[in-house]
Amino acid sequence: MKKLARLLYGATDGGAPYFSADILWRTGFRVPDPLFLVEITGKTFLFASPLEAGRAEKEADVDHVVRITGNARAAITDFLKARGIRSVKVPGSFPYGVAKSMEKNFTVVIAEEPWYPERAIKTAAEIREIEKAQRATERAFSAAITFLRACNIKRHGVYHGNRPATSEMVRAIIDHALWHDGYLAMGTIVASGTQAADPHCIGRGVLSARVPIVIDIFPASLATHYYADMTRTVFKGKPAKDYVRMYEHVRKAQENAIKKIRPGADGRRIYNEVREYFSAEGYRTTIDGKRAEGFIHGLGHGVGIDIHEHPRLGSEAEILEKGNVVTVEPGLYYPRVGGIRIEDMVLITATGCKNLTRAPKSLATAIIP
Amino acid sequence: MKKLARLLYGATDGGAPYFSADILWRTGFRVPDPLFLVEITGKTFLFASPLEAGRAEKEADVDHVVRITGNARAAITDFLKARGIRSVKVPGSFPYGVAKSMEKNFTVVIAEEPWYPERAIKTAAEIREIEKAQRATERAFSAAITFLRACNIKRHGVYHGNRPATSEMVRAIIDHALWHDGYLAMGTIVASGTQAADPHCIGRGVLSARVPIVIDIFPASLATHYYADMTRTVFKGKPAKDYVRMYEHVRKAQENAIKKIRPGADGRRIYNEVREYFSAEGYRTTIDGKRAEGFIHGLGHGVGIDIHEHPRLGSEAEILEKGNVVTVEPGLYYPRVGGIRIEDMVLITATGCKNLTRAPKSLATAIIP
Repeated sequence: MKKLARLLYGATDGGAPYFSADILWRTGFRVPDPLFLVEITGKTFLFASPLEAGRAEKEADVDHVVRITGNARAAITDFLKARGIRSVKVPGSFPYGVAKSMEKNFTVVIAEEPWYPERAIKTAAEIREIEKAQRATERAFSAAITFLRACNIKRHGVYHGNRPATSEMVRAIIDHALWHDGYLAMGTIVASGTQAADPHCIGRGVLSARVPIVIDIFPASLATHYYADMTRTVFKGKPAKDYVRMYEHVRKAQENAIKKIRPGADGRRIYNEVREYFSAEGYRTTIDGKRAEGFIHGLGHGVGIDIHEHPRLGSEAEILEKGNVVTVEPGLYYPRVGGIRIEDMVLITATGCKNLTRAPKSLATAIIP
Repeated sequence: MKKLARLLYGATDGGAPYFSADILWRTGFRVPDPLFLVEITGKTFLFASPLEAGRAEKEADVDHVVRITGNARAAITDFLKARGIRSVKVPGSFPYGVAKSMEKNFTVVIAEEPWYPERAIKTAAEIREIEKAQRATERAFSAAITFLRACNIKRHGVYHGNRPATSEMVRAIIDHALWHDGYLAMGTIVASGTQAADPHCIGRGVLSARVPIVIDIFPASLATHYYADMTRTVFKGKPAKDYVRMYEHVRKAQENAIKKIRPGADGRRIYNEVREYFSAEGYRTTIDGKRAEGFIHGLGHGVGIDIHEHPRLGSEAEILEKGNVVTVEPGLYYPRVGGIRIEDMVLITATGCKNLTRAPKSLATAIIP
């Protein structure tokens, strides 16, 4: 059997072109410069520049820090050859340029995802971090609701005093509240009317009254990089019956899904059941070259040191395990109508799951007078 | 000659694992999901998921948006084959997994860096964005200095009233000021004493009096993603003569370097002259397996939509051109002494350069009473 090393590349801070959540998760070490993490039979070797190596020795949770003097690729190649390594495993995201130079000396194998399956099983400390982020998310959401309560309706628009109330204003309230709590929110969604029919549209301009306003908040801790993720859909003023029906079906679909989440359950199956539920209630899903409407995204994803992690609740089979933290976020989107999404984050327990989200989601609380 | 396509991969937002400043620069389009940008004889094709394609058609500055239905790699392969493409050029950072599947149908070539050499020549609109970021940086720096002026010295420590003044407090002042201006600062450095001897140490704990405090600020616009970058070194209380001498030599080295910056100049030469200047003044540089001291990093780098861009002023030859925006940031670092760095950002003009940085750097302003 060929002796194998596993090799990760990354620069673990935001400014850098490549962020490796795996390196941050495994080593707890963040630097602006590129790093290589080598694993040989369970031992970890962190290759760092002379500028970083001193701090890595103090701060990084690895077995050895290796100082790169000169060319990094040459240093790693020599290191691996000296240890009799013949084969190197890398993730699919590994830089092609580095991998090609490795091919000259090693068999390079692309690893299956995820790189660290154990990242999906959260420790008690990780769950605490995620819950802290969720509490901050709920405080920020409350601030947004307080603002919307103070608004009034003129014709079809939402106003704050005499000024139109905009997506940008509500997003600023949310993002500022989070920033002051030590969390960074990027791309917070506050989208109303037909904008909300595009689940990735962050929303802009004046908020529309009596139609769904989708508010999706997913901040990361500036200190630890752990995320939370929550979506609520609210209405400023009483919505039409069709919206009420759509809201209640999304909520019902989410509650049904949450009841099925337990160790051993298949995320794909729960996702398919939500699709079938919507379909049976007359909410058609179409995704083709020209159109995307209905329930057009996955049902959920793991949350941790990255915003989208394993396991996924979507079109591919993935068996849930105790200790997973996943979102459950059914939604319906129709270009002429708008969109509704409700998203909670749950922790999978021995027998089912615990909802980590405390913000209310009843229809009564969704309608802001 | 083989017909060639150029292929970029990226997800252009911070939360995603791979940020492509090139895609953002070329298309002006940001999404949370992965994108492919294909260029064939100057025409650009943006491959986006059905979720993103509608918005891409409205917002992305490309010739065509192609909706990916089904497998993205298969869709791109079919698209390229149908156009008679035999060879695909990718950047060295391109994901190995995707490139390997491309190798089955195409000759895959790694491009030289930079991917878009024209990114280094800033337009008037880009220069305005960089200058706006620099003004915000200077306002944040002023707020930090106001705080340090209000502090007092007890023994060797800096105090704010009866509380120790820390790196964290000063960093919070800077980062909050920037946030409220619409800029995101990550990893702002406020490092004093021996911490400042590590140019990447962000600093923590109580600030030391009468020794260098390195303050390095490099925020990005939340709206446009353009950066600024500035470093000042200050002292709370009068420093010892050795520090004064070191400060003045760093400042002198920087001024000498700025005078040499003009179109046609070689960044490496200016960098080497700074090294020689320090060496002649007795400031030795050593970078080996165990130690890094002296002038241990490059002299400067381009700034734009990314914090580190071409051209570089460092150990490799790079010819400067009119329209480049580069930092000039000599520094000296000694583990038992501390570190001093002074960094301005300059725009290269037809005959020399224009300093975009307005914050003072004389010794008199660096010493805070």
